[in-house]
Amino acid sequence: MTMEGTITSGVHRLPLRVYYEDTDFSGNVYHANYLKFCERGRSDFLRVLGIDQNAMIGGDTALMFVVRRMLCDFLRPARFDDLLVVETTPGEMAGARFELAQRVLRGEEVLFTAGVTVALIDGVGRPKRVPPEMLNAFRKAAR
Amino acid sequence: MTMEGTITSGVHRLPLRVYYEDTDFSGNVYHANYLKFCERGRSDFLRVLGIDQNAMIGGDTALMFVVRRMLCDFLRPARFDDLLVVETTPGEMAGARFELAQRVLRGEEVLFTAGVTVALIDGVGRPKRVPPEMLNAFRKAAR
Amino acid sequence: MTMEGTITSGVHRLPLRVYYEDTDFSGNVYHANYLKFCERGRSDFLRVLGIDQNAMIGGDTALMFVVRRMLCDFLRPARFDDLLVVETTPGEMAGARFELAQRVLRGEEVLFTAGVTVALIDGVGRPKRVPPEMLNAFRKAAR
Amino acid sequence: MTMEGTITSGVHRLPLRVYYEDTDFSGNVYHANYLKFCERGRSDFLRVLGIDQNAMIGGDTALMFVVRRMLCDFLRPARFDDLLVVETTPGEMAGARFELAQRVLRGEEVLFTAGVTVALIDGVGRPKRVPPEMLNAFRKAAR
Repeated sequence: MTMEGTITSGVHRLPLRVYYEDTDFSGNVYHANYLKFCERGRSDFLRVLGIDQNAMIGGDTALMFVVRRMLCDFLRPARFDDLLVVETTPGEMAGARFELAQRVLRGEEVLFTAGVTVALIDGVGRPKRVPPEMLNAFRKAAR
Repeated sequence: MTMEGTITSGVHRLPLRVYYEDTDFSGNVYHANYLKFCERGRSDFLRVLGIDQNAMIGGDTALMFVVRRMLCDFLRPARFDDLLVVETTPGEMAGARFELAQRVLRGEEVLFTAGVTVALIDGVGRPKRVPPEMLNAFRKAAR
Repeated sequence: MTMEGTITSGVHRLPLRVYYEDTDFSGNVYHANYLKFCERGRSDFLRVLGIDQNAMIGGDTALMFVVRRMLCDFLRPARFDDLLVVETTPGEMAGARFELAQRVLRGEEVLFTAGVTVALIDGVGRPKRVPPEMLNAFRKAAR
Repeated sequence: MTMEGTITSGVHRLPLRVYYEDTDFSGNVYHANYLKFCERGRSDFLRVLGIDQNAMIGGDTALMFVVRRMLCDFLRPARFDDLLVVETTPGEMAGARFELAQRVLRGEEVLFTAGVTVALIDGVGRPKRVPPEMLNAFRKAAR
């Protein structure tokens, strides 16, 4: 099963369907739901890299990714029943932070773009350096 | 502030507004969101009774209410901008379980009804008897 | 792509992943979200049957399925990262209404069951008989 | 009832409660839900100004506000049961677009800030100038 998407040339692509729950009475996808789609993309990007978020959180030194900043451009509306793709492209990493570029597409059409700053924190919210094995996984993916 | 609603003759009433996020492309409130409205009603019913869910969960003997069963009747659609009221009426209590009747109204119109069975569980999911002080709070409210 | 699931022996099965958005601070899937999962199952069941909800809604005689009643049993909690399957089994049909049995499973474990009554309505909310071609599609699936 | 908040010195303030539905298994409010909170703030800001979104959408010349861009900073986590305030401060208006600054606070603590660009569109998605009576309402509020 490739529900979790695939990485090609350093870009993770996750297919997803627009359901009733994603729309609002304007007929289009509710704006905040693009952020959900992007979070699914990031979670499955980590999954494909072999990074187990559940193990990270439950481990001795609980680690969790949190979104610090997100610049969202809502370009064109997605609609009920659309088949979309979420693209996740890792960018710069420095200390406890890294950048990702994300897009939501319907075929060739770009509907939504986001620049995302993610931080790694421990169980009490302190920023933590990205561990070397995680860094390596990101770097391999970026090639 | 009476954001958390009021209890009159044993019935808790919570006002709430329908926002974009609550609707779907049919133009009506998305069906699963009535369950969210009911959960807000139950949470604020406990709040008005002086039961602090946060303290319960964080305490030595973590206690949490979970929904076991819900019979939902979707009678008439709510729409964007509607001002609704969630009514919560406590019913029978026995051991770790109790029953609630809930309704969502727009003025006099009943839009949604639910019969809800809630259980009290501890941190590892085992059913726990409702503590006497909680029982007393429920009984006072029912008068 | 089999994102929309498959029908085997009259039962539609849709795989889905539990993301951050589906959980609440109890650590488990938020109860109302099982209804979203079931709605995805019903939508993709129609899709696999070749019934185009978008065309139905947009056509001259707008037709839409709405949930009238749902009896929900929350048996065991699903958790972050779980891979779930939504099973949809069509039941009795009579006039404008039909019954469906739905379950959410993690492997062999049944986490959630629902008995769902769905009605077909037109653009102004009046009940409409299920058209013969739709009935045929359901009957073929049930075999 | 002041459920819809109040405007003081040009800033609209809307109180809201964090419920189960708003949190995720990290224990904090799910990041995309701050956008829902902000949308509630904008809707109720319009309501307090006397602008009826429902009438706008349903009228001869359907008009709707859509978010074009949003720069979101997630500063500190909100948690279950928190009582929050959404602040909405209107900014520049030019043609079909205007800017808003929004913040989510818990007491004095700023948890989330957003710079929001909203556009007014008609029923087929074309940008429309903000009508003079709406402009006047905004300007009065800003004083």
